[in-house]
Amino acid sequence: MTRVALISQSANLAYFGPLLQAAAPELEVVVWPDPAFREAEVAMCWNAPPGVYTEMPKLQLVHSIAAGVDNVVAGQDLRGLPVCRVVDPQLAEGMVQYVLWSVLYFHRSLDVAFANQRRAVWKRPVQTPALQCRVGVMGLGKLGGAIVRQLVALGYTVNGWSRSAHAIDGMAMFTGPEAFDAFLAETDVLICVLPLTDATRGILGRRTFDRLPRGAAIVNCGRGEHLVANDLLGALDSGQLRGAVLDVFAQEPLPADDPLWRAPGVVVTPHMATMASSAVVAEQVAHNVRRLVAGEPLANVVDMGRGY
Amino acid sequence: MTRVALISQSANLAYFGPLLQAAAPELEVVVWPDPAFREAEVAMCWNAPPGVYTEMPKLQLVHSIAAGVDNVVAGQDLRGLPVCRVVDPQLAEGMVQYVLWSVLYFHRSLDVAFANQRRAVWKRPVQTPALQCRVGVMGLGKLGGAIVRQLVALGYTVNGWSRSAHAIDGMAMFTGPEAFDAFLAETDVLICVLPLTDATRGILGRRTFDRLPRGAAIVNCGRGEHLVANDLLGALDSGQLRGAVLDVFAQEPLPADDPLWRAPGVVVTPHMATMASSAVVAEQVAHNVRRLVAGEPLANVVDMGRGY
Repeated sequence: MTRVALISQSANLAYFGPLLQAAAPELEVVVWPDPAFREAEVAMCWNAPPGVYTEMPKLQLVHSIAAGVDNVVAGQDLRGLPVCRVVDPQLAEGMVQYVLWSVLYFHRSLDVAFANQRRAVWKRPVQTPALQCRVGVMGLGKLGGAIVRQLVALGYTVNGWSRSAHAIDGMAMFTGPEAFDAFLAETDVLICVLPLTDATRGILGRRTFDRLPRGAAIVNCGRGEHLVANDLLGALDSGQLRGAVLDVFAQEPLPADDPLWRAPGVVVTPHMATMASSAVVAEQVAHNVRRLVAGEPLANVVDMGRGY
Repeated sequence: MTRVALISQSANLAYFGPLLQAAAPELEVVVWPDPAFREAEVAMCWNAPPGVYTEMPKLQLVHSIAAGVDNVVAGQDLRGLPVCRVVDPQLAEGMVQYVLWSVLYFHRSLDVAFANQRRAVWKRPVQTPALQCRVGVMGLGKLGGAIVRQLVALGYTVNGWSRSAHAIDGMAMFTGPEAFDAFLAETDVLICVLPLTDATRGILGRRTFDRLPRGAAIVNCGRGEHLVANDLLGALDSGQLRGAVLDVFAQEPLPADDPLWRAPGVVVTPHMATMASSAVVAEQVAHNVRRLVAGEPLANVVDMGRGY
């Protein structure tokens, strides 16, 4: 019998138990910190406690419950274990909707309308066609690609930036660090759906903000650690940035006294951009466990050199 | 020489002068109340003063500067004159964006997120796929049709309601007054892009709200007179409606002391859903004037029996 341990120090993953067993009744499921986790062959994780894998001598696979693996591998001794992530088409649908809402919010000056409503001020903003709104998408994986295609379909001018080149109809490609400044100079609304790696941590910081056109806006759906919050507050204060829609934070829940909650121009949402379909996650993990047991190649294995 | 009079009691239409002459240099343009308006063959109007056409003995054509003609014909003696409207593809782009933003605002619980942000409360709302969000579109003309096609493309469940049947791929059609209650019963987000006629005035009122599922939301991009504001405030107060996005009002600008500005759950925007492209408007009117002079059939003539 193969044992799967559900491991998280910040969330109770017990609800995955019945879903995993619906998908693969032969599995035994235990929930950390039940000591039985030490005998598990598979760790299914979100925010894994430091060093937890070293307590699991039979461990053969570390599986994230999400698209990102950063909080599953950070500071861990992986001793060469394969790490897999979840690739859920539903995740893309939710992310596309959220980003589309955010782009429309800035492009159509709904942010200005909200501010005016608070003072009962009637003032029609200047409106421009979608083609004149330049959206820059950082990160062109499954989620970024879906976002780009939808924005192109709606007539936006879309620029993409990524470490390696991706060809998407209607998108102008900016590849690698050497093209980053040129990408930023052409961006009115900057979308971050990058994976979190040492190369992308803090990428939404002052250096980046200073290279955007004055009055640009940002949307962070990557990870909280992509953002340097103090740099954002400074850029909003100076008018270099017009606003920000933030879905992810270095500490979640965002503490009630965090200045981001009340900063003018900032929309805070509770890590809700994608709709996690727990059943799909459980199914994908169950299938990967079966592949592991059968000695077949695993799906959605993360390249630990790149970090995603 | 053909004379066009620019007529509005609420806006200064003088800026159309150069645009009209760029499109048709042979026209003479005058701006009401310059007495020369009495000699004009064409009235190009927005909010025409009562009785103005009776002062224009040579008048052969009344042309709205917009998609709607209600405020151009209401209370007027038209003596059988043709009335034309503007059909601008750009108008549809703007309207589609605005409605899409509003649907996402409710479907993805951004309204809840905004309310929670004001109290620094971190709470992930329940999220559902687009397919489980039923959008009802009232009015299936050029604007309504474009809205429906975009919502279908994004995976929403879309119901359409109109006086006459329209077939749009992926949309369920509800035709005429006898299907109205069935339409409402299947609608989570109700969009109004109807023309304003005696049959549609006040359609966003208590009778309609009571037939929507509890917790439904409305979006009014038609005319202010479609809405019974007190009925909306009551339905929000009782929880029958969850919220409303309103772009049009019986009195515009909306007076600063109007309760809609501050009603919980109401988003007020300043009649900004569509981006009026003045150059396109001027071009269409100029072309219709040339058709009139040449004795050719006019474009976009309104059926005054229907009112649109």
